[in-house]
Amino acid sequence: MTSSNPIIFYDIASSPPLRTFAVNPWKTRYALNSKGLPYQTKWIDLPDIASVRQELGVPANRTLPDGTSYHTLPAIHDAWTGKIVGDSFEIALYLDKTYPTARTLIQPGTTGLTAAFNAQVDGLFTKYVLLADQMPFDARIAEKVQDIFVKRMGATTFEHLQMSGEDREKLLVQFERALGEFVKAYYHVGGTTDYFWSQTGTATAQAQKRGREQSGPYLDVDGPVYADLIVGAWLAMMEASMKPEDWQRMRTWQDGFWARLHDALAPLREIK
Amino acid sequence: MTSSNPIIFYDIASSPPLRTFAVNPWKTRYALNSKGLPYQTKWIDLPDIASVRQELGVPANRTLPDGTSYHTLPAIHDAWTGKIVGDSFEIALYLDKTYPTARTLIQPGTTGLTAAFNAQVDGLFTKYVLLADQMPFDARIAEKVQDIFVKRMGATTFEHLQMSGEDREKLLVQFERALGEFVKAYYHVGGTTDYFWSQTGTATAQAQKRGREQSGPYLDVDGPVYADLIVGAWLAMMEASMKPEDWQRMRTWQDGFWARLHDALAPLREIK
Repeated sequence: MTSSNPIIFYDIASSPPLRTFAVNPWKTRYALNSKGLPYQTKWIDLPDIASVRQELGVPANRTLPDGTSYHTLPAIHDAWTGKIVGDSFEIALYLDKTYPTARTLIQPGTTGLTAAFNAQVDGLFTKYVLLADQMPFDARIAEKVQDIFVKRMGATTFEHLQMSGEDREKLLVQFERALGEFVKAYYHVGGTTDYFWSQTGTATAQAQKRGREQSGPYLDVDGPVYADLIVGAWLAMMEASMKPEDWQRMRTWQDGFWARLHDALAPLREIK
Repeated sequence: MTSSNPIIFYDIASSPPLRTFAVNPWKTRYALNSKGLPYQTKWIDLPDIASVRQELGVPANRTLPDGTSYHTLPAIHDAWTGKIVGDSFEIALYLDKTYPTARTLIQPGTTGLTAAFNAQVDGLFTKYVLLADQMPFDARIAEKVQDIFVKRMGATTFEHLQMSGEDREKLLVQFERALGEFVKAYYHVGGTTDYFWSQTGTATAQAQKRGREQSGPYLDVDGPVYADLIVGAWLAMMEASMKPEDWQRMRTWQDGFWARLHDALAPLREIK
Protein backbone atom coordinates (compact mmCIF):
# COMPACT_ATOMS: atom_id res chain seq x y z
CA MET A 1 0.00 0.00 0.00
CA THR A 2 1.22 3.53 -0.77
CA SER A 3 -0.13 6.95 0.00
CA SER A 4 -1.14 7.27 -3.68
CA ASN A 5 -3.13 4.06 -3.42
CA PRO A 6 -4.67 4.26 0.03
CA ILE A 7 -7.61 2.89 1.95
CA ILE A 8 -10.86 4.78 1.26
CA PHE A 9 -12.67 5.29 4.56
CA TYR A 10 -16.41 6.06 4.30
CA ASP A 11 -17.44 8.26 7.23
CA ILE A 12 -20.71 10.08 8.04
CA ALA A 13 -20.60 13.77 7.02
CA SER A 14 -21.03 16.40 9.72
CA SER A 15 -21.82 20.08 9.31
CA PRO A 16 -18.69 22.03 8.27
CA PRO A 17 -15.91 21.65 9.15
CA LEU A 18 -16.20 17.97 8.20
CA ARG A 19 -15.32 15.83 11.19
CA THR A 20 -16.01 12.41 12.68
CA PHE A 21 -18.68 12.30 15.38
CA ALA A 22 -20.51 8.93 15.26
CA VAL A 23 -19.22 6.06 17.38
CA ASN A 24 -18.57 3.35 14.81
CA PRO A 25 -16.67 5.59 12.37
CA TRP A 26 -14.63 6.70 15.38
CA LYS A 27 -13.70 3.07 16.05
CA THR A 28 -12.39 2.74 12.50
CA ARG A 29 -10.61 6.11 12.40
CA TYR A 30 -8.89 5.28 15.69
CA ALA A 31 -7.94 1.88 14.23
CA LEU A 32 -6.50 3.37 11.03
CA ASN A 33 -4.59 6.05 12.91
CA SER A 34 -3.33 3.54 15.48
CA LYS A 35 -1.93 1.35 12.70
CA GLY A 36 -0.57 4.41 10.89
CA LEU A 37 -1.96 3.32 7.53
CA PRO A 38 -2.43 5.81 4.64
CA TYR A 39 -6.11 6.50 4.01
CA GLN A 40 -8.50 9.10 2.66
CA THR A 41 -11.93 9.96 4.05
CA LYS A 42 -15.04 10.02 1.85
CA TRP A 43 -17.77 11.94 3.64
CA ILE A 44 -21.31 10.60 3.07
CA ASP A 45 -24.48 12.43 4.11
CA LEU A 46 -26.53 10.21 6.42
CA PRO A 47 -29.51 9.89 4.01
CA ASP A 48 -27.12 8.66 1.27
CA ILE A 49 -25.47 5.87 3.29
CA ALA A 50 -27.75 3.07 2.09
CA SER A 51 -27.23 3.80 -1.62
CA VAL A 52 -23.45 4.19 -1.20
CA ARG A 53 -23.20 0.87 0.61
CA GLN A 54 -25.42 -0.83 -1.95
CA GLU A 55 -23.07 0.40 -4.71
CA LEU A 56 -20.13 -0.98 -2.72
CA GLY A 57 -21.98 -4.29 -2.47
CA VAL A 58 -21.89 -4.59 1.34
CA PRO A 59 -24.94 -5.95 3.19
CA ALA A 60 -27.07 -3.92 5.59
CA ASN A 61 -25.47 -4.33 8.99
CA ARG A 62 -27.99 -3.28 11.64
CA THR A 63 -31.59 -3.95 12.58
CA LEU A 64 -34.50 -1.61 13.30
CA PRO A 65 -36.87 -2.30 16.24
CA ASP A 66 -39.37 -3.70 13.70
CA GLY A 67 -36.82 -6.28 12.54
CA THR A 68 -35.93 -4.76 9.15
CA SER A 69 -32.28 -4.12 8.46
CA TYR A 70 -30.56 -0.84 7.64
CA HIS A 71 -27.17 0.45 6.55
CA THR A 72 -24.66 2.38 8.65
CA LEU A 73 -21.05 3.41 8.30
CA PRO A 74 -18.10 2.87 8.53
CA ALA A 75 -17.04 0.94 5.47
CA ILE A 76 -13.61 0.78 3.88
CA HIS A 77 -12.46 0.08 0.35
CA ASP A 78 -8.83 -0.98 0.40
CA ALA A 79 -7.53 0.07 -3.00
CA TRP A 80 -4.36 -1.96 -2.36
CA THR A 81 -6.16 -5.31 -2.07
CA GLY A 82 -9.49 -4.41 -3.68
CA LYS A 83 -11.29 -5.58 -0.56
CA ILE A 84 -14.43 -3.82 0.78
CA VAL A 85 -15.40 -4.30 4.44
CA GLY A 86 -18.55 -2.80 5.92
CA ASP A 87 -18.50 -3.34 9.70
CA SER A 88 -16.20 -1.71 12.27
CA PHE A 89 -15.24 -4.93 14.07
CA GLU A 90 -14.64 -6.76 10.79
CA ILE A 91 -12.51 -3.81 9.63
CA ALA A 92 -10.30 -4.13 12.73
CA LEU A 93 -9.84 -7.87 12.11
CA TYR A 94 -9.17 -7.23 8.41
CA LEU A 95 -6.54 -4.56 9.09
CA ASP A 96 -4.66 -6.78 11.56
CA LYS A 97 -4.72 -9.70 9.14
CA THR A 98 -3.74 -7.67 6.06
CA TYR A 99 -1.17 -5.37 7.70
CA PRO A 100 0.38 -7.50 10.47
CA THR A 101 3.56 -5.44 10.70
CA ALA A 102 1.65 -2.28 11.63
CA ARG A 103 0.69 -1.93 15.32
CA THR A 104 -1.64 -4.79 16.34
CA LEU A 105 -5.19 -3.76 17.28
CA ILE A 106 -6.51 -7.07 18.64
CA GLN A 107 -3.80 -9.20 20.23
CA PRO A 108 -3.68 -12.90 19.29
CA GLY A 109 -5.96 -14.91 21.55
CA THR A 110 -8.14 -11.91 22.47
CA THR A 111 -10.57 -11.75 19.52
CA GLY A 112 -13.46 -13.39 21.38
CA LEU A 113 -12.84 -11.29 24.50
CA THR A 114 -12.69 -8.12 22.39
CA ALA A 115 -15.89 -9.02 20.52
CA ALA A 116 -17.65 -9.52 23.86
CA PHE A 117 -16.22 -6.22 25.13
CA ASN A 118 -17.49 -4.43 22.02
CA ALA A 119 -21.03 -5.68 22.67
CA GLN A 120 -20.74 -4.85 26.39
CA VAL A 121 -19.57 -1.28 25.77
CA ASP A 122 -22.05 -0.65 22.95
CA GLY A 123 -24.82 -1.97 25.21
CA LEU A 124 -23.78 0.27 28.10
CA PHE A 125 -23.45 3.53 26.14
CA THR A 126 -26.50 2.88 23.93
CA LYS A 127 -28.67 3.05 27.07
CA TYR A 128 -27.62 6.67 27.44
CA VAL A 129 -27.47 7.67 23.77
CA LEU A 130 -30.36 10.12 24.18
CA LEU A 131 -27.81 12.30 25.99
CA ALA A 132 -25.97 12.61 22.63
CA ASP A 133 -28.73 14.72 21.10
CA GLN A 134 -26.51 17.47 19.67
CA MET A 135 -25.09 15.48 16.75
CA PRO A 136 -23.53 17.97 14.31
CA PHE A 137 -25.58 17.27 11.19
CA ASP A 138 -25.76 19.87 8.45
CA ALA A 139 -28.90 22.04 8.65
CA ARG A 140 -29.71 21.30 4.99
CA ILE A 141 -30.37 17.60 5.79
CA ALA A 142 -31.67 18.07 9.34
CA GLU A 143 -35.26 17.09 8.55
CA LYS A 144 -34.31 13.89 6.73
CA VAL A 145 -31.93 12.95 9.55
CA GLN A 146 -34.65 13.49 12.15
CA ASP A 147 -36.98 11.16 10.24
CA ILE A 148 -34.25 8.51 10.14
CA PHE A 149 -33.64 8.71 13.89
CA VAL A 150 -37.35 8.56 14.70
CA LYS A 151 -37.51 5.29 12.74
CA ARG A 152 -34.35 3.87 14.33
CA MET A 153 -35.48 4.58 17.86
CA GLY A 154 -38.99 3.27 17.23
CA ALA A 155 -40.43 6.69 18.20
CA THR A 156 -43.44 8.51 16.73
CA THR A 157 -42.07 12.03 16.40
CA PHE A 158 -38.66 13.64 16.83
CA GLU A 159 -39.99 15.62 19.79
CA HIS A 160 -40.51 12.33 21.62
CA LEU A 161 -36.74 11.82 21.52
CA GLN A 162 -36.07 15.17 23.24
CA MET A 163 -35.67 14.94 26.98
CA SER A 164 -36.97 17.33 29.60
CA GLY A 165 -34.41 18.86 31.98
CA GLU A 166 -35.54 16.52 34.74
CA ASP A 167 -35.31 13.38 32.57
CA ARG A 168 -31.89 14.47 31.37
CA GLU A 169 -30.68 14.94 34.93
CA LYS A 170 -31.95 11.46 35.91
CA LEU A 171 -30.28 9.88 32.90
CA LEU A 172 -26.98 11.65 33.64
CA VAL A 173 -26.99 10.32 37.21
CA GLN A 174 -27.74 6.77 35.99
CA PHE A 175 -25.01 7.07 33.37
CA GLU A 176 -22.46 8.13 35.98
CA ARG A 177 -23.41 5.14 38.17
CA ALA A 178 -23.18 2.70 35.26
CA LEU A 179 -19.72 4.02 34.40
CA GLY A 180 -18.78 3.69 38.08
CA GLU A 181 -19.44 -0.03 37.81
CA PHE A 182 -17.72 -0.30 34.45
CA VAL A 183 -14.53 1.49 35.53
CA LYS A 184 -13.76 -1.45 37.86
CA ALA A 185 -12.39 -3.36 34.87
CA TYR A 186 -9.72 -0.68 34.37
CA TYR A 187 -8.62 -1.23 37.97
CA HIS A 188 -8.59 -5.01 37.40
CA VAL A 189 -11.41 -5.59 39.85
CA GLY A 190 -13.66 -8.32 38.47
CA GLY A 191 -16.52 -8.00 40.91
CA THR A 192 -20.08 -8.80 40.14
CA THR A 193 -22.27 -5.79 39.46
CA ASP A 194 -23.23 -5.10 43.04
CA TYR A 195 -23.21 -1.33 42.59
CA PHE A 196 -21.40 -0.48 45.77
CA TRP A 197 -18.87 1.57 43.83
CA SER A 198 -21.50 3.66 42.17
CA GLN A 199 -23.36 4.06 45.45
CA THR A 200 -20.34 5.28 47.37
CA GLY A 201 -18.98 7.26 44.46
CA THR A 202 -15.42 6.58 45.55
CA ALA A 203 -14.29 4.43 42.68
CA THR A 204 -10.64 5.32 42.91
CA ALA A 205 -10.39 4.72 46.65
CA GLN A 206 -12.12 1.34 46.33
CA ALA A 207 -9.98 0.43 43.35
CA GLN A 208 -6.75 1.19 45.12
CA LYS A 209 -7.87 -0.97 48.03
CA ARG A 210 -8.97 -3.94 45.91
CA GLY A 211 -7.38 -3.70 42.47
CA ARG A 212 -4.19 -2.52 40.82
CA GLU A 213 -2.81 0.67 42.29
CA GLN A 214 -2.08 2.47 39.07
CA SER A 215 -4.88 2.39 36.56
CA GLY A 216 -4.35 2.84 32.86
CA PRO A 217 -5.87 4.93 31.43
CA TYR A 218 -5.88 1.76 29.31
CA LEU A 219 -7.26 -1.67 30.21
CA ASP A 220 -3.74 -3.06 30.38
CA VAL A 221 -0.25 -1.62 30.33
CA ASP A 222 0.31 -2.44 26.65
CA GLY A 223 -2.63 -0.26 25.57
CA PRO A 224 -4.19 1.28 23.69
CA VAL A 225 -5.50 -1.93 22.14
CA TYR A 226 -8.71 -2.05 20.09
CA ALA A 227 -10.81 -2.48 23.26
CA ASP A 228 -9.48 0.86 24.54
CA LEU A 229 -10.33 2.43 21.18
CA ILE A 230 -13.93 1.14 21.43
CA VAL A 231 -14.44 3.04 24.70
CA GLY A 232 -12.49 5.96 23.24
CA ALA A 233 -14.86 6.02 20.25
CA TRP A 234 -17.87 6.39 22.54
CA LEU A 235 -16.14 9.18 24.47
CA ALA A 236 -15.29 10.97 21.21
CA MET A 237 -18.94 10.71 20.13
CA MET A 238 -20.09 12.02 23.51
CA GLU A 239 -17.73 14.99 23.23
CA ALA A 240 -19.04 15.76 19.72
CA SER A 241 -22.72 15.16 20.45
CA MET A 242 -23.57 15.95 24.07
CA LYS A 243 -24.47 19.39 25.34
CA PRO A 244 -21.07 20.95 26.13
CA GLU A 245 -21.95 21.34 29.80
CA ASP A 246 -22.93 17.65 30.05
CA TRP A 247 -19.62 16.60 28.46
CA GLN A 248 -17.71 18.81 30.91
CA ARG A 249 -19.60 17.17 33.73
CA MET A 250 -18.88 13.68 32.36
CA ARG A 251 -15.18 14.53 32.32
CA THR A 252 -15.29 14.83 36.13
CA TRP A 253 -16.88 11.39 36.73
CA GLN A 254 -14.89 8.62 38.41
CA ASP A 255 -12.30 11.16 39.50
CA GLY A 256 -11.69 12.24 35.92
CA PHE A 257 -10.92 8.75 34.61
CA TRP A 258 -12.80 9.17 31.29
CA ALA A 259 -11.22 12.57 30.71
CA ARG A 260 -7.76 11.00 31.17
CA LEU A 261 -8.59 8.21 28.71
CA HIS A 262 -10.03 10.64 26.15
CA ASP A 263 -7.04 12.99 26.45
CA ALA A 264 -4.54 10.13 26.16
CA LEU A 265 -6.11 9.16 22.81
CA ALA A 266 -5.94 12.70 21.38
CA PRO A 267 -2.93 11.92 19.11
CA LEU A 268 -5.08 9.25 17.38
CA ARG A 269 -7.94 11.62 16.52
CA GLU A 270 -6.27 13.13 13.44
CA ILE A 271 -8.70 13.41 10.51
CA LYS A 272 -7.12 12.61 7.13
CA MET B 1 3.64 -26.45 47.47
CA THR B 2 3.14 -30.16 48.09
CA SER B 3 0.06 -32.33 48.38
CA SER B 4 0.67 -32.51 52.15
CA ASN B 5 0.65 -28.72 52.34
CA PRO B 6 -2.03 -27.73 49.88
CA ILE B 7 -4.36 -24.85 49.21
CA ILE B 8 -7.49 -24.90 51.39
CA PHE B 9 -10.50 -24.05 49.23
CA TYR B 10 -13.61 -22.86 51.10
CA ASP B 11 -16.73 -23.88 49.15
CA ILE B 12 -20.45 -23.70 50.00
CA ALA B 13 -21.79 -27.04 51.31
CA SER B 14 -24.56 -28.77 49.36
CA SER B 15 -26.83 -31.56 50.49
CA PRO B 16 -25.00 -34.93 50.36
CA PRO B 17 -23.05 -35.90 48.35
CA LEU B 18 -21.05 -32.72 48.92
CA ARG B 19 -20.54 -30.97 45.60
CA THR B 20 -19.97 -27.50 44.12
CA PHE B 21 -23.05 -25.74 42.78
CA ALA B 22 -22.70 -21.95 43.26
CA VAL B 23 -21.17 -19.90 40.48
CA ASN B 24 -18.25 -18.20 42.22
CA PRO B 25 -16.92 -21.36 43.90
CA TRP B 26 -17.17 -22.99 40.46
CA LYS B 27 -14.93 -20.25 39.04
CA THR B 28 -12.29 -21.06 41.65
CA ARG B 29 -12.59 -24.84 41.40
CA TYR B 30 -12.23 -24.60 37.63
CA ALA B 31 -9.21 -22.33 38.14
CA LEU B 32 -7.53 -24.72 40.62
CA ASN B 33 -8.20 -27.76 38.43
CA SER B 34 -7.06 -25.92 35.30
CA LYS B 35 -3.73 -25.08 36.97
CA GLY B 36 -3.48 -28.61 38.39
CA LEU B 37 -2.61 -27.38 41.89
CA PRO B 38 -3.01 -29.62 44.97
CA TYR B 39 -5.90 -28.44 47.15
CA GLN B 40 -8.45 -29.63 49.67
CA THR B 41 -12.06 -28.47 49.95
CA LYS B 42 -13.54 -27.22 53.22
CA TRP B 43 -17.33 -27.29 52.97
CA ILE B 44 -19.10 -24.45 54.79
CA ASP B 45 -22.85 -24.29 55.38
CA LEU B 46 -24.25 -21.08 53.88
CA PRO B 47 -25.35 -19.61 57.25
CA ASP B 48 -21.79 -20.08 58.60
CA ILE B 49 -19.97 -18.27 55.77
CA ALA B 50 -19.79 -14.87 57.46
CA SER B 51 -18.24 -16.21 60.68
CA VAL B 52 -15.74 -18.40 58.79
CA ARG B 53 -14.63 -15.44 56.66
CA GLN B 54 -14.39 -13.19 59.70
CA GLU B 55 -12.09 -15.76 61.34
CA LEU B 56 -9.99 -15.81 58.16
CA GLY B 57 -9.84 -12.01 58.31
CA VAL B 58 -11.19 -11.35 54.81
CA PRO B 59 -13.61 -8.43 54.26
CA ALA B 60 -17.24 -8.82 53.22
CA ASN B 61 -17.20 -8.86 49.43
CA ARG B 62 -20.75 -8.19 48.21
CA THR B 63 -23.53 -5.68 48.80
CA LEU B 64 -27.23 -6.14 49.63
CA PRO B 65 -29.87 -4.01 47.87
CA ASP B 66 -30.03 -1.85 51.05
CA GLY B 67 -26.31 -1.06 50.73
CA THR B 68 -25.00 -3.22 53.60
CA SER B 69 -22.26 -5.67 52.77
CA TYR B 70 -22.26 -9.46 53.18
CA HIS B 71 -19.89 -12.39 52.89
CA THR B 72 -19.83 -15.06 50.17
CA LEU B 73 -17.46 -17.80 49.11
CA PRO B 74 -15.06 -18.78 47.64
CA ALA B 75 -12.01 -18.02 49.71
CA ILE B 76 -8.67 -19.80 49.70
CA HIS B 77 -5.97 -20.20 52.33
CA ASP B 78 -2.72 -21.09 50.65
CA ALA B 79 -0.85 -23.06 53.32
CA TRP B 80 2.31 -22.85 51.18
CA THR B 81 2.51 -19.03 51.27
CA GLY B 82 0.20 -18.32 54.22
CA LYS B 83 -1.87 -16.04 52.00
CA ILE B 84 -5.68 -15.82 52.31
CA VAL B 85 -7.71 -14.48 49.35
CA GLY B 86 -11.49 -14.00 49.51
CA ASP B 87 -12.73 -13.12 46.00
CA SER B 88 -12.85 -15.37 42.92
CA PHE B 89 -11.26 -12.87 40.52
CA GLU B 90 -8.52 -11.99 43.02
CA ILE B 91 -7.91 -15.72 43.52
CA ALA B 92 -7.36 -16.19 39.78
CA LEU B 93 -4.89 -13.28 39.71
CA TYR B 94 -3.16 -14.62 42.83
CA LEU B 95 -2.78 -18.15 41.45
CA ASP B 96 -1.27 -16.89 38.18
CA LYS B 97 1.16 -14.65 40.05
CA THR B 98 2.16 -17.25 42.65
CA TYR B 99 2.28 -20.30 40.38
CA PRO B 100 3.39 -18.92 36.99
CA THR B 101 4.67 -22.26 35.70
CA ALA B 102 1.23 -23.90 36.03
CA ARG B 103 -1.19 -23.27 33.12
CA THR B 104 -1.95 -19.53 32.85
CA LEU B 105 -5.56 -18.53 33.60
CA ILE B 106 -5.47 -14.86 32.52
CA GLN B 107 -3.00 -14.21 29.71
CA PRO B 108 -0.66 -11.22 30.08
CA GLY B 109 -2.33 -8.08 28.74
CA THR B 110 -5.86 -9.44 29.18
CA THR B 111 -6.56 -8.71 32.85
CA GLY B 112 -8.70 -5.63 32.19
CA LEU B 113 -10.58 -7.38 29.37
CA THR B 114 -11.18 -10.43 31.58
CA ALA B 115 -12.37 -8.27 34.49
CA ALA B 116 -14.85 -6.56 32.14
CA PHE B 117 -15.95 -9.94 30.81
CA ASN B 118 -16.52 -11.22 34.34
CA ALA B 119 -18.84 -8.28 35.07
CA GLN B 120 -20.59 -8.71 31.69
CA VAL B 121 -21.23 -12.44 32.19
CA ASP B 122 -22.26 -12.06 35.84
CA GLY B 123 -24.65 -9.28 34.79
CA LEU B 124 -26.18 -11.37 32.03
CA PHE B 125 -26.76 -14.57 34.02
CA THR B 126 -27.82 -12.75 37.20
CA LYS B 127 -30.85 -11.41 35.31
CA TYR B 128 -32.04 -15.01 34.97
CA VAL B 129 -30.89 -16.37 38.32
CA LEU B 130 -34.48 -16.97 39.44
CA LEU B 131 -34.39 -19.92 37.01
CA ALA B 132 -31.76 -21.49 39.31
CA ASP B 133 -34.28 -22.10 42.07
CA GLN B 134 -33.38 -25.73 42.77
CA MET B 135 -30.10 -25.10 44.60
CA PRO B 136 -29.15 -28.31 46.44
CA PHE B 137 -29.05 -27.05 50.02
CA ASP B 138 -29.34 -29.50 52.88
CA ALA B 139 -32.91 -29.76 54.27
CA ARG B 140 -31.64 -29.16 57.82
CA ILE B 141 -30.62 -25.57 56.93
CA ALA B 142 -33.32 -24.87 54.33
CA GLU B 143 -35.22 -22.35 56.41
CA LYS B 144 -32.13 -20.30 57.28
CA VAL B 145 -31.04 -20.36 53.62
CA GLN B 146 -34.45 -19.15 52.47
CA ASP B 147 -34.26 -16.21 54.89
CA ILE B 148 -30.81 -15.32 53.53
CA PHE B 149 -32.00 -15.35 49.92
CA VAL B 150 -35.08 -13.25 50.71
CA LYS B 151 -32.74 -10.62 52.17
CA ARG B 152 -30.30 -10.79 49.25
CA MET B 153 -32.99 -10.42 46.62
CA GLY B 154 -34.72 -7.62 48.50
CA ALA B 155 -37.94 -9.71 48.61
CA THR B 156 -40.53 -9.92 51.39
CA THR B 157 -41.11 -13.67 51.53
CA PHE B 158 -39.51 -16.72 49.93
CA GLU B 159 -42.73 -17.41 48.05
CA HIS B 160 -42.24 -14.11 46.21
CA LEU B 161 -39.07 -15.57 44.67
CA GLN B 162 -40.96 -18.56 43.24
CA MET B 163 -42.10 -18.12 39.65
CA SER B 164 -45.36 -19.21 38.11
CA GLY B 165 -45.18 -21.51 35.08
CA GLU B 166 -46.01 -18.60 32.80
CA ASP B 167 -43.35 -16.29 34.30
CA ARG B 168 -40.80 -19.08 34.09
CA GLU B 169 -41.60 -19.67 30.44
CA LYS B 170 -41.23 -15.94 29.65
CA LEU B 171 -37.92 -15.78 31.50
CA LEU B 172 -36.61 -18.86 29.68
CA VAL B 173 -37.43 -17.27 26.30
CA GLN B 174 -35.71 -14.01 27.29
CA PHE B 175 -32.70 -15.97 28.57
CA GLU B 176 -32.38 -17.83 25.28
CA ARG B 177 -32.50 -14.53 23.36
CA ALA B 178 -29.90 -12.89 25.59
CA LEU B 179 -27.59 -15.86 25.09
CA GLY B 180 -28.24 -15.61 21.34
CA GLU B 181 -26.75 -12.13 21.42
CA PHE B 182 -23.92 -13.17 23.71
CA VAL B 183 -22.83 -16.17 21.62
CA LYS B 184 -21.75 -13.77 18.85
CA ALA B 185 -18.51 -13.17 20.75
CA TYR B 186 -17.61 -16.86 20.41
CA TYR B 187 -18.01 -16.51 16.66
CA HIS B 188 -15.85 -13.36 16.71
CA VAL B 189 -18.73 -11.17 15.59
CA GLY B 190 -18.49 -7.87 17.44
CA GLY B 191 -21.83 -6.36 16.49
CA THR B 192 -23.81 -3.99 18.58
CA THR B 193 -26.69 -5.55 20.44
CA ASP B 194 -29.23 -5.25 17.66
CA TYR B 195 -30.92 -8.54 18.51
CA PHE B 196 -31.25 -9.84 14.97
CA TRP B 197 -29.58 -13.10 15.97
CA SER B 198 -31.96 -13.75 18.77
CA GLN B 199 -34.91 -12.78 16.60
CA THR B 200 -34.00 -15.09 13.77
CA GLY B 201 -32.80 -17.83 16.09
CA THR B 202 -30.22 -18.95 13.57
CA ALA B 203 -27.09 -17.98 15.43
CA THR B 204 -24.84 -20.56 13.80
CA ALA B 205 -25.91 -19.71 10.26
CA GLN B 206 -25.41 -15.99 10.86
CA ALA B 207 -22.09 -16.63 12.54
CA GLN B 208 -20.74 -18.68 9.69
CA LYS B 209 -21.73 -15.94 7.30
CA ARG B 210 -20.22 -13.08 9.31
CA GLY B 211 -17.71 -14.50 11.79
CA ARG B 212 -15.16 -17.31 12.08
CA GLU B 213 -16.29 -20.58 10.52
CA GLN B 214 -15.32 -22.85 13.36
CA SER B 215 -16.39 -21.67 16.77
CA GLY B 216 -14.65 -22.74 19.94
CA PRO B 217 -16.30 -23.94 22.13
CA TYR B 218 -13.82 -21.49 23.66
CA LEU B 219 -13.54 -17.75 23.03
CA ASP B 220 -10.23 -18.30 21.26
CA VAL B 221 -8.28 -21.29 20.02
CA ASP B 222 -5.93 -21.31 23.00
CA GLY B 223 -8.78 -21.83 25.47
CA PRO B 224 -9.97 -22.58 27.98
CA VAL B 225 -8.73 -19.37 29.55
CA TYR B 226 -10.24 -17.90 32.72
CA ALA B 227 -12.93 -16.10 30.67
CA ASP B 228 -14.14 -19.48 29.37
CA LEU B 229 -14.18 -20.79 32.93
CA ILE B 230 -16.36 -17.85 34.04
CA VAL B 231 -19.06 -18.83 31.54
CA GLY B 232 -18.44 -22.50 32.39
CA ALA B 233 -19.02 -21.71 36.07
CA TRP B 234 -22.45 -20.25 35.30
CA LEU B 235 -23.34 -23.27 33.17
CA ALA B 236 -22.24 -25.62 35.97
CA MET B 237 -24.42 -23.69 38.42
CA MET B 238 -27.35 -23.84 36.01
CA GLU B 239 -26.94 -27.60 35.63
CA ALA B 240 -26.87 -28.02 39.43
CA SER B 241 -29.67 -25.58 40.23
CA MET B 242 -32.22 -25.39 37.39
CA LYS B 243 -35.16 -27.74 37.03
CA PRO B 244 -33.67 -30.68 35.09
CA GLU B 245 -36.06 -30.14 32.18
CA ASP B 246 -35.04 -26.45 31.95
CA TRP B 247 -31.36 -27.41 31.89
CA GLN B 248 -32.01 -29.96 29.13
CA ARG B 249 -33.81 -27.26 27.17
CA MET B 250 -30.94 -24.80 27.71
CA ARG B 251 -28.54 -27.41 26.30
CA THR B 252 -30.36 -27.14 22.94
CA TRP B 253 -30.09 -23.32 22.69
CA GLN B 254 -27.89 -21.75 19.99
CA ASP B 255 -27.64 -25.10 18.24
CA GLY B 256 -26.24 -26.77 21.36
CA PHE B 257 -23.39 -24.31 21.80
CA TRP B 258 -23.65 -24.12 25.63
CA ALA B 259 -23.88 -27.90 25.89
CA ARG B 260 -20.66 -28.23 23.86
CA LEU B 261 -18.88 -25.72 26.09
CA HIS B 262 -20.13 -27.39 29.28
CA ASP B 263 -19.17 -30.86 28.05
CA ALA B 264 -15.70 -29.69 26.95
CA LEU B 265 -15.03 -28.47 30.50
CA ALA B 266 -16.08 -31.77 32.15
CA PRO B 267 -12.45 -32.88 32.85
CA LEU B 268 -12.02 -29.72 34.98
CA ARG B 269 -15.03 -30.43 37.22
CA GLU B 270 -13.25 -32.92 39.49
CA ILE B 271 -14.01 -32.29 43.18
CA LYS B 272 -11.01 -32.79 45.49
